Amino acid sequence: MSTDPSTYEFNHTMYRVRDPAKSVDFYTRLLGMSLIFKSDFEEAKFSLYFFAYGVPQSILSASEEERKKYAFSRPGVLELTHNWGTETEEKFEGYHTGNKDPRGYGHIGVIVDNVEAACKRLEENGVNFIKKPNDGRMKNIAFVTDPDGYWVEILPKGF
Amino acid sequence: MSTDPSTYEFNHTMYRVRDPAKSVDFYTRLLGMSLIFKSDFEEAKFSLYFFAYGVPQSILSASEEERKKYAFSRPGVLELTHNWGTETEEKFEGYHTGNKDPRGYGHIGVIVDNVEAACKRLEENGVNFIKKPNDGRMKNIAFVTDPDGYWVEILPKGF
Repeated sequence: MSTDPSTYEFNHTMYRVRDPAKSVDFYTRLLGMSLIFKSDFEEAKFSLYFFAYGVPQSILSASEEERKKYAFSRPGVLELTHNWGTETEEKFEGYHTGNKDPRGYGHIGVIVDNVEAACKRLEENGVNFIKKPNDGRMKNIAFVTDPDGYWVEILPKGF
Repeated sequence: MSTDPSTYEFNHTMYRVRDPAKSVDFYTRLLGMSLIFKSDFEEAKFSLYFFAYGVPQSILSASEEERKKYAFSRPGVLELTHNWGTETEEKFEGYHTGNKDPRGYGHIGVIVDNVEAACKRLEENGVNFIKKPNDGRMKNIAFVTDPDGYWVEILPKGF
């Protein structure tokens, strides 16, 4: 066992979402990630959802134990936390995305082969844009929002 | 060029930091990441810092162009944004970590071979703990804070 910190790995990024049905659809169908597994915590009334790109089919069809082990052994994992009930709670004010005061968290960035084609497809699917690829000075990058308003940057591979 | 979204990759996670000297020290010396490159935006008065684990020495000693290309071609990259002046601005209230109201963003997770040894080392180096490995019900995972108070989970590989 090494305690050399350079052997560590950046496994995941977590944020809270209001309605997992909407988030799962956004991150899988629209952004192309795979849902590796979901864990329910009955007593504390929350669920965790783990997503990533490039998940082999052999993992997606493996046991929950195998899928969990996989999710905690690689980089590039997105973890979404759903506190039960927020999706139907009328008084729920929504989660804070970090890009308005008080600021802090910013975004995740997704790299794609062709930003224009990727953004055209997202636009056709009704995704909300903060910045389209040709807006502003920074050409060929875009920012979209997920169902909770969190920002996702779309940028070219090797930018 | 494919527009199949499953070909996308989860490249980076970005948050804002007050004092890059402190953050670079935390994420490199204490957490073991490498600083791949830094970009300064003179007119808009901000800098971006890109970190990752497992960066080959050949990249770290390559040209800035090569290092940038590398940073935008792989998963598991941490991007920190420094808006110039915050580190000395007395009235600066700090960034919002997302774990107090208004909640939203949660944490990044770092996987290690030996959680106890990793946490012992971080503790000896004065890192602040939200949760030590043996606190609470979830054994063998810990939460520490970075210089801005953002949470970093320390969890075992294959958890």
